[in-house]
Amino acid sequence: MAGEASGAHPVPGFRLGTACAGIRKPGRTDLLVMELAAGGTAAAVFTRNRFRAAPVRIAERHLAGQAPRYCLVNTGVANAGTGERGEADALACCRALAERTGCAPEAVVPFSTGVIGEPLPVERVVAGLETALGGLGEDRWEAAAAAIQTTDTRNKVASYQVALSGGICTITGMAKGAGMIRPDMATMLAFVATDAAVPEAVLDTVLRRANERSFNRVTVDGDTSTNDACLLAASGVGPEVAAAGADLERFQAAVEAVCIDLARAIAADGEGATRLVDVAVEGARDTAEAERVAFTVAESPLVKTALAAGDPNWGRILAAVGRSGVADLDVDGVRLTLGEQVVVAHGGVVPGYDEAAAAEHLAGSEVRLGIDLGRGEAAATVWTCDLTAEYVRINAEYRT
Amino acid sequence: MAGEASGAHPVPGFRLGTACAGIRKPGRTDLLVMELAAGGTAAAVFTRNRFRAAPVRIAERHLAGQAPRYCLVNTGVANAGTGERGEADALACCRALAERTGCAPEAVVPFSTGVIGEPLPVERVVAGLETALGGLGEDRWEAAAAAIQTTDTRNKVASYQVALSGGICTITGMAKGAGMIRPDMATMLAFVATDAAVPEAVLDTVLRRANERSFNRVTVDGDTSTNDACLLAASGVGPEVAAAGADLERFQAAVEAVCIDLARAIAADGEGATRLVDVAVEGARDTAEAERVAFTVAESPLVKTALAAGDPNWGRILAAVGRSGVADLDVDGVRLTLGEQVVVAHGGVVPGYDEAAAAEHLAGSEVRLGIDLGRGEAAATVWTCDLTAEYVRINAEYRT
Repeated sequence: MAGEASGAHPVPGFRLGTACAGIRKPGRTDLLVMELAAGGTAAAVFTRNRFRAAPVRIAERHLAGQAPRYCLVNTGVANAGTGERGEADALACCRALAERTGCAPEAVVPFSTGVIGEPLPVERVVAGLETALGGLGEDRWEAAAAAIQTTDTRNKVASYQVALSGGICTITGMAKGAGMIRPDMATMLAFVATDAAVPEAVLDTVLRRANERSFNRVTVDGDTSTNDACLLAASGVGPEVAAAGADLERFQAAVEAVCIDLARAIAADGEGATRLVDVAVEGARDTAEAERVAFTVAESPLVKTALAAGDPNWGRILAAVGRSGVADLDVDGVRLTLGEQVVVAHGGVVPGYDEAAAAEHLAGSEVRLGIDLGRGEAAATVWTCDLTAEYVRINAEYRT
Repeated sequence: MAGEASGAHPVPGFRLGTACAGIRKPGRTDLLVMELAAGGTAAAVFTRNRFRAAPVRIAERHLAGQAPRYCLVNTGVANAGTGERGEADALACCRALAERTGCAPEAVVPFSTGVIGEPLPVERVVAGLETALGGLGEDRWEAAAAAIQTTDTRNKVASYQVALSGGICTITGMAKGAGMIRPDMATMLAFVATDAAVPEAVLDTVLRRANERSFNRVTVDGDTSTNDACLLAASGVGPEVAAAGADLERFQAAVEAVCIDLARAIAADGEGATRLVDVAVEGARDTAEAERVAFTVAESPLVKTALAAGDPNWGRILAAVGRSGVADLDVDGVRLTLGEQVVVAHGGVVPGYDEAAAAEHLAGSEVRLGIDLGRGEAAATVWTCDLTAEYVRINAEYRT
């Protein structure tokens, strides 16, 4: 496996094009068309929020019927909380793209992100299609990653190549997301493409496994979006991946690596964030328990504000572990580490604890909180960020 | 039932005294002694956080054996995460107070609030006892409420009088709390006193019921403290309350009124808060469902930052309702009101929605978010506050 999060490998069978459609504000690139070669396969996961945006409902219907030929993505307006009109608007955009490309409207999958509750400006989306289609190219991943951003401050792209028995296979993905981030099946929005030839059922399993260990372990603010979606598409022009065997294992690992890179990038670029935080829980009875503890710590405003200050306030971490719902937790068996340093064991701070060293670790751009529950073999890592006054400013002023 | 949150009625059988003991910082009143007349009864609820502070563990043991004669409360240091030494320190303080008053050490109940992980300065606590005992008085509730504060900005006192068949009974309570507030059985700290004569078992039932509907429905930041405690004590010098009947109902209602006043005061004084927010959920299948939805909305950082800006961003409220875990929620049946105005029904904004009027409501110091799930008869109200940059500042700088 080779490749890095920066430097996206083009994926044979995929082309991308963007446009500045003025959807909510003028002067920013806010429209993306991603074209998939005919004969590919796709799998997707969507938000479990009960308020699902119109494009999510349409996307699920369209993907159920056939493999997609085009993804149509807009930012600015989420087309959520828009009732029946929202579905009609999303469908109108799909039809317009289908007419211009000669595919069926059901082969177009819509995605939207932005403000909830405002109607989608269909005319502006449609007016932007020509530019997006005119600029389609295989090497436009970075431009595409920029086009799907809202409050993001940087591109989130990850790309790996992996040697399968039939040849080299490429997997490139991009994501957006900085706020309303606590994905529950997927994050708003991630697109992962591969040239491998993968049966749809296999692709679906690969995506669900990767997603569980990547996007579903990110939280910025605990708020699950109405528009979350993650799509994994395979053009099939590259090597084959069978339903079992070493190729599948390598392919699964590479997809997971792309998704984890993107998930960490989302946490690092959380709204107002100054540092990426790994909350690594081990010694749990089962994975669900490890995840519960990790999410409780990762979503604690008190832990996150202490992290913003670079303050090794381990008491707040203990308090979060203690309220995480592990009913029979033996608190004397819990070990807490900041970076590489053990801070707490046997219910209190360890002798010789070096607070200055802990503060130095917390001053960095990547921080690791290790929590060993001391009661089992299961582990889970959740990625989050610190909570700063800038987060409040961004979200207080979002609609203005 | 008469009385107000301001203007505390003295409670026959209770005396309070404070001292400036310099526990963590010099120059602030940080020690409280509350004396209960002999022959009284008491009930208490404590935090369910698995990391329970040393004073919580001692308090529970002491209350199990006998009715208390003294509560000893300090701020500055929580005496939590302090291992075995923490219990020894708390016991040493209890013994010192017992020696000076001639009661058994087990008749002293300790409470601490403040920074987690620092040892309790026993000598300073003991040195402050003389001043506190020398100043004991029945009319010192406001001074006592001031003495137990940490990041609180104002006193939280509530007082009611209620006519029972045996005469007028007084119920006065005080609380502290502004951060690490998501009580799970009680809040750090509340003391409610009455002169009624109430059997211990009855008092326990009254407290648990009142607590479920008051302190357990407050959240500032979702973080449950390691030191939460709520004590209801009855001196028994006033009218009797039997185990059933109209007197018990009146007494229960008055205790609940005191607790709700204090709970709302805690939310209104949440760290950095500019407004008190009632999240009132109705139309739920059962109370647990109503509480779950109300807490999800009340703890959503995106809802709370919008409230800080006075922005009627109802999309964020819908998104929080949608992720609250009501699996089969029919989103078209949900009605959302801001103040008195219906904003959302049938999955979208209602025709004629007046955003300016909604913004005007949200600009006030008391805000009401009404959520009707449209699927049952159960209801629950949770109290919270907005999330401001000042909250981040307070908690980033707390230990410095």
